[in-house]
Amino acid sequence: MLRLGIVGLGRGAVLTAPALAAHPRIEIVAGCDPGADARAGFAAQMKARSYADLETLLCDPEIDAVYIASPHESHAAHTVAAARAGKHVLVEKPMAVTLANAARMAEAARAAGTVLMVGPSHGYDAPVALAADLIADGTAGAAHMIHAFAYTDFLYRPRRPAELLRAEGGGVVLSQGSHQVDVVRRLAGSRVKTVRAWVGDWDAARRADGAFTALLTFENGAAAGLVYSGYARYDSDARAGWAGELGMPKTPGTQARTRAALAAGNEGAAKTARGFAAGAEAVRAPYHERLGSVIACCANADLELTPEGVVVHGDAGPELRMAPLPPVRRYGVADAFARAVLDGERPLFDGAWGLETLAVLHALLKSAVEGRDISPADLIDAERSMP
Amino acid sequence: MLRLGIVGLGRGAVLTAPALAAHPRIEIVAGCDPGADARAGFAAQMKARSYADLETLLCDPEIDAVYIASPHESHAAHTVAAARAGKHVLVEKPMAVTLANAARMAEAARAAGTVLMVGPSHGYDAPVALAADLIADGTAGAAHMIHAFAYTDFLYRPRRPAELLRAEGGGVVLSQGSHQVDVVRRLAGSRVKTVRAWVGDWDAARRADGAFTALLTFENGAAAGLVYSGYARYDSDARAGWAGELGMPKTPGTQARTRAALAAGNEGAAKTARGFAAGAEAVRAPYHERLGSVIACCANADLELTPEGVVVHGDAGPELRMAPLPPVRRYGVADAFARAVLDGERPLFDGAWGLETLAVLHALLKSAVEGRDISPADLIDAERSMP
Repeated sequence: MLRLGIVGLGRGAVLTAPALAAHPRIEIVAGCDPGADARAGFAAQMKARSYADLETLLCDPEIDAVYIASPHESHAAHTVAAARAGKHVLVEKPMAVTLANAARMAEAARAAGTVLMVGPSHGYDAPVALAADLIADGTAGAAHMIHAFAYTDFLYRPRRPAELLRAEGGGVVLSQGSHQVDVVRRLAGSRVKTVRAWVGDWDAARRADGAFTALLTFENGAAAGLVYSGYARYDSDARAGWAGELGMPKTPGTQARTRAALAAGNEGAAKTARGFAAGAEAVRAPYHERLGSVIACCANADLELTPEGVVVHGDAGPELRMAPLPPVRRYGVADAFARAVLDGERPLFDGAWGLETLAVLHALLKSAVEGRDISPADLIDAERSMP
Repeated sequence: MLRLGIVGLGRGAVLTAPALAAHPRIEIVAGCDPGADARAGFAAQMKARSYADLETLLCDPEIDAVYIASPHESHAAHTVAAARAGKHVLVEKPMAVTLANAARMAEAARAAGTVLMVGPSHGYDAPVALAADLIADGTAGAAHMIHAFAYTDFLYRPRRPAELLRAEGGGVVLSQGSHQVDVVRRLAGSRVKTVRAWVGDWDAARRADGAFTALLTFENGAAAGLVYSGYARYDSDARAGWAGELGMPKTPGTQARTRAALAAGNEGAAKTARGFAAGAEAVRAPYHERLGSVIACCANADLELTPEGVVVHGDAGPELRMAPLPPVRRYGVADAFARAVLDGERPLFDGAWGLETLAVLHALLKSAVEGRDISPADLIDAERSMP
């Protein structure tokens, strides 16, 4: 059994804890959060101990591993502390805010001989996994041009101030870009060579990295075009039969309601209400988790990712390949972490993967400022050569 | 009355001649084409004279203007000859293959004092015009990020060999990119500052510029992300209720049938059958002409272009603004040409516009080869400084 502590009892934990709890090889032992309401909600719902701080949780002798869902700006300190305490780590995306911290995290896990896995991310979604399989087994063949776009109300959901600050890991590039980058990296099956990007920040009442569009080239010759708006009033889930990001049916008008709720005030309270202080979320969803639209033009077919799986558009026409629904949302991530810790399997998105995805995001931000191609590998090399 | 000659009686002429013929201020007097079947079909259907070559047509004293729908590689020579003969010119996109020739065309029209208009292009589509109006009148406000994507079977339709050769104006960048570039330029309302692009050529049996993805930045700070596949088995018209590019209902499976027909052989005959040698096309369509999907994120709303018009996604939710259907497909282009010639109105896409769009396409091709940003203005300046 993998005995788990959860660090940070906010939105991420609410969405992922049920899958961890449902896994037969994982036991949620404890959680920690500075908020008393979050602790009380967690303890009651998960039947587990709760602590006010990470240090106390790490002293709990019954914990083998932690899932770190604290604010982005705390991922690094929490991960390093956990690794030094000999705990395996599943850390939320983005792995860290800075490349220096991501490198420190990977090094801490290496030195301790512990697992470091990054997730959940939409790169784990079952339709993405199925598409990657169809590319690898030759059904679709190599992906040449990948296109991912999402129009969400990300910027108008209840936020802590840090969630809108680039320096704290906020904004849509660092918060949401990792999803799209994980997806296109997995489908391209190659390292990102260059990034050229544009970032938008156009709501004076809500300053942040709110939108981006980017062109990625890969070492194997493939390319990806990314578009993301967190300001959206157009909803890309309309293209998916109103299946929402979490796999639940979505009511048209959600984005307008999000803006209206924000305008009504009490953003801080609304934010708290999305964590463990409020009730649990439904954990069985009729569709897969998904972020926006993904279309991969491959040698023998175009792959269109959908809430059900993948439509393989081949010479004979389209064919829907269903991806099996998990028993509980995010079960695949929980299972991958259990296998990494208990069976020694290398996780798909390990520390090295997370570092590269973060380097792509920093390349994206830097390209938008400097107006030129940026190589993620160069950013990592520059970081390594620092004294 | 504008008395018109049509140069080149192939696919472009078949699609545009009905609108020109239907306009009350335009009279189609004659056409020319080297193909006897095309001439016979044209003469019978349009009740007009036909000539085997341009020189003879230009000697016809009853012709005031010409619509040049000859192969791309002939646009420049035909346009210059027509301007020198004092004829106004409507020339198909792309205006020319090289920037040098596009500049020669603009100069020839300037010297002769004749109109030079480039079109038809999807930049004239009524939903694009409506979106541009909604941006300009403040309903949507300034466009910050524009996204255009199309998945078509362009590469597998019947083609002359030149249509697959970049040097002859073939491939999807020069043939189809002008549509997307005209659309996003019109919506951005600004000059393109930089182009970073990737071009795909991945069918060994059909070598050509077959796909591209590009990031354009504009002088006013806006950006556009473009994606085009001419290899597509996924059909972007599926997103538009199966309304096709020409505004006609489309049967799912069209792309598979296009590939199957090509595989069956007789490409040359199939190409001829799409021109005036065969019957006329239906000219009234239930939807607007359109190429793929266009979404513009603007200050106050997201605009989603559809076959009916524009869905304005505002704070209160989506609202469909219908664009009035023309009496005949492409009537707006015919009307713009008539007003340019007869009323002295400056056409929206004049020689200067066409030159800039072509420069964006050449910047796109050059960026893909050199792996860096290219400025279209620099390409035009370099051309001008040539001895």
